[in-house]
Amino acid sequence: MAQQPLKRVLVTGGAGYIGSHIVLTLLLTRQYKVLSIDNHHNSFPTALKRASQIATEALPEDATAQDRDSAVVESFTGDLNSRADVEKVFASGPIWGVIHVAALKAVGESSEIPLDYYATNVGATIQLLQIMQEHGCYSMVYSSSATVYGTPPLVPIPETTPLKAESVYGRTKVMCETILADLCTAYPDRWRAISLRYFNPAGAHTSGLMGEDPRGKPGNLLPLLSQIAIGKYADSPLKVFGNDYPTRDGTCVRDYIHILDLARGHLLALEALSDERAPGSTISPDVFPKEGGKYKAYNLGKGHGQSVLSMIAAMHKASGFEYKYDIIGRRVGDVPDLTADPTLAQKELGFSAPLELEQMCEDLWRWQSMNPDGYGEQ
Amino acid sequence: MAQQPLKRVLVTGGAGYIGSHIVLTLLLTRQYKVLSIDNHHNSFPTALKRASQIATEALPEDATAQDRDSAVVESFTGDLNSRADVEKVFASGPIWGVIHVAALKAVGESSEIPLDYYATNVGATIQLLQIMQEHGCYSMVYSSSATVYGTPPLVPIPETTPLKAESVYGRTKVMCETILADLCTAYPDRWRAISLRYFNPAGAHTSGLMGEDPRGKPGNLLPLLSQIAIGKYADSPLKVFGNDYPTRDGTCVRDYIHILDLARGHLLALEALSDERAPGSTISPDVFPKEGGKYKAYNLGKGHGQSVLSMIAAMHKASGFEYKYDIIGRRVGDVPDLTADPTLAQKELGFSAPLELEQMCEDLWRWQSMNPDGYGEQ
Ligand SMILES: NC(=O)c1ccc[n+]([C@@H]2O[C@H](COP(=O)([O-])OP(=O)(O)OC[C@H]3O[C@@H](n4cnc5c(N)ncnc54)[C@H](O)[C@@H]3O)[C@@H](O)[C@H]2O)c1
Ligand SMILES: NC(=O)c1ccc[n+]([C@@H]2O[C@H](COP(=O)([O-])OP(=O)(O)OC[C@H]3O[C@@H](n4cnc5c(N)ncnc54)[C@H](O)[C@@H]3O)[C@@H](O)[C@H]2O)c1
Repeated sequence: MAQQPLKRVLVTGGAGYIGSHIVLTLLLTRQYKVLSIDNHHNSFPTALKRASQIATEALPEDATAQDRDSAVVESFTGDLNSRADVEKVFASGPIWGVIHVAALKAVGESSEIPLDYYATNVGATIQLLQIMQEHGCYSMVYSSSATVYGTPPLVPIPETTPLKAESVYGRTKVMCETILADLCTAYPDRWRAISLRYFNPAGAHTSGLMGEDPRGKPGNLLPLLSQIAIGKYADSPLKVFGNDYPTRDGTCVRDYIHILDLARGHLLALEALSDERAPGSTISPDVFPKEGGKYKAYNLGKGHGQSVLSMIAAMHKASGFEYKYDIIGRRVGDVPDLTADPTLAQKELGFSAPLELEQMCEDLWRWQSMNPDGYGEQ
Repeated sequence: MAQQPLKRVLVTGGAGYIGSHIVLTLLLTRQYKVLSIDNHHNSFPTALKRASQIATEALPEDATAQDRDSAVVESFTGDLNSRADVEKVFASGPIWGVIHVAALKAVGESSEIPLDYYATNVGATIQLLQIMQEHGCYSMVYSSSATVYGTPPLVPIPETTPLKAESVYGRTKVMCETILADLCTAYPDRWRAISLRYFNPAGAHTSGLMGEDPRGKPGNLLPLLSQIAIGKYADSPLKVFGNDYPTRDGTCVRDYIHILDLARGHLLALEALSDERAPGSTISPDVFPKEGGKYKAYNLGKGHGQSVLSMIAAMHKASGFEYKYDIIGRRVGDVPDLTADPTLAQKELGFSAPLELEQMCEDLWRWQSMNPDGYGEQ
């Protein structure tokens, strides 16, 4: 039986932490031809090579030429701020859909250099959508964030919560969601988009070959904990910002979700954007309304929160490292509890996030101890 | 006594209705060297020639070479979406400040082609700010709009009303205001910006040489009324959308402000952005806080609303034309009453809008009858 030709899907920021795990997840399905564009502002090309390597090794013995092709990502080094760089990708052949992951993502930095954030996160997104439209590519999965909720009035947080970001970074996400919603409303027969609001992606691929390797000192708790456990930052003690929040143990609570569960959410979103359904599809007909704009936003989280202290305990268990920490004052802008209400993605996409905290920490620690210097590149 | 060198000020969209009257107002002060960039998407180059002509004729007999230079606008034909076009303007010499007027502005159209609106109104603004920053130009007066208030909970509308635009066009204005506020907060010693939220600019320069000449059928009431009075659109009767609003006579109420009063508001805003004060300056030290971001938004309106029916009556009085109109159903998106609370601009900028409705209509009618085909260009 002849194989269906592969749908070409572009992952922007494909070499980054989340992007590279999405790329790998797509490669492993052998259903897509995956392209990536990344300027390696915060990532290394090796991530993409490892993804192709893992997917190629997973091929069955009787793999066809098309299967082999589907296991290798087509990688473009380019800047989304450059129209020419993006057009080069689209000139390589018709692209069916885009998973738009690339962005600047440091909350603190975003208030220091807001123009860079607005340019890369908003300006470049508008330009990408224009180029997609010029090439007849009308489907986007967008990497949004729980930060769009600001300080949510209701926890666990449902998608119906009014968006009210409290940082420049968060505002760039709200703006892009708004633009996508308006675009889908204007062209209900053409554009479709799904925003996925990530809670706290954590962990690494179980092979230990891929994981998070941010440039510079990690801004997020888990990668910081794992880098401390391999001996980095020994001279600057770990800081816990506030233990007087209205939470279980007084420290901030976040909803950690395994990066592989999160990545799988993108497969479901791609299927929801498509007119075709896989056999045994879990996509509900309610994803898009019959009339009106085909835009939807979903939380991707487990629906269970973990406090800072419980994360330290879990990473101690995984790595054996005895963490020392100082409890200091609250940090401006920290929200006490960001736990997702994941019901909508469960109901409409058939999404679930079964991987538990213990495995997130084990997988993270495997990656970190196998690759103490990350991808080992500059 | 030697003259101070002129501050170079760029007016984007300088050939448009509002832009050309701002340009003229600046030229007449002989205090600035005025530059314009416009792609003539919705305007004609003649507007700028007329502005230079009026200002040159107004020069005193003993005008210096610098005075003569200050009466002529330096005009660039270029697209704000093109980095190269904007950079060409900045390459012409140091620019002290930008009055950013250029935008797409049709509310209805904005929901049909949202990407064009987001690109021109938001993407190009981000790029303009980047180019300004690269050239050490840190002052902007931004053309915002009463539409940022959506359906306001309180009328007359104070600036403290939460922004909640109800159209794509309005959202582009809110986004740009947000970006400017974040930029000024990040660089309190560098960036300064003032957003001017226009209510309904109306009328024309008293010479009859300059006025509003939109391409296509006017979207706004007053220019439509004046074009009808000179005999256009005779076959399609004037439509009044709804007479059952909770207003004096049931038709929608807007706050019309003479275009020359509005333009003068930009002179005051430029002065407020500057460290220098003109003799007899009306700018209050309260415009910007001592600490924190130097960003402020002001309403520019008269603070008196006029209903659709009273505008028809006023234009009848000015033109003598007997308008026939059909009262039809409400139009989606129309807000009953948009009247400014102009107190803040009065108090902090010393702004006032003394020109009355009668004069707006007379000036408009003079322009229209002297130029039945506008600037007469294609
Ligand atoms: N990691 C989180 O906790 C988290 C949470 C919520 C949302 N997100 C969002 O998920 C996305 C991915 O986050 P991540 O954690 O993988 O970050 P990351 O920095 O690892 O990945 C982003 C990738 O985009 C690339 N990139 C940045 N600017 C670019 C440009 N101008 N052109 C081309 N490529 C560019 C970077 O080099 C990087 O590879 C981002 O949009 C982020 O805002 C992340
Ligand atoms: N007229 C109103 O009632 C009103 C009310 C509130 C706010 N505003 C705002 O005031 C500003 C001016 O409005 P106006 O009534 O004078 O409109 P206008 O269309 O007459 O002026 C806008 C000018 O910008 C130019 N322009 C558009 N896109 C451009 C681009 N990409 N590059 C270069 N130039 C470009 C147009 O050619 C035009 O000359 C706009 O920002 C508008 O949103 C207008």
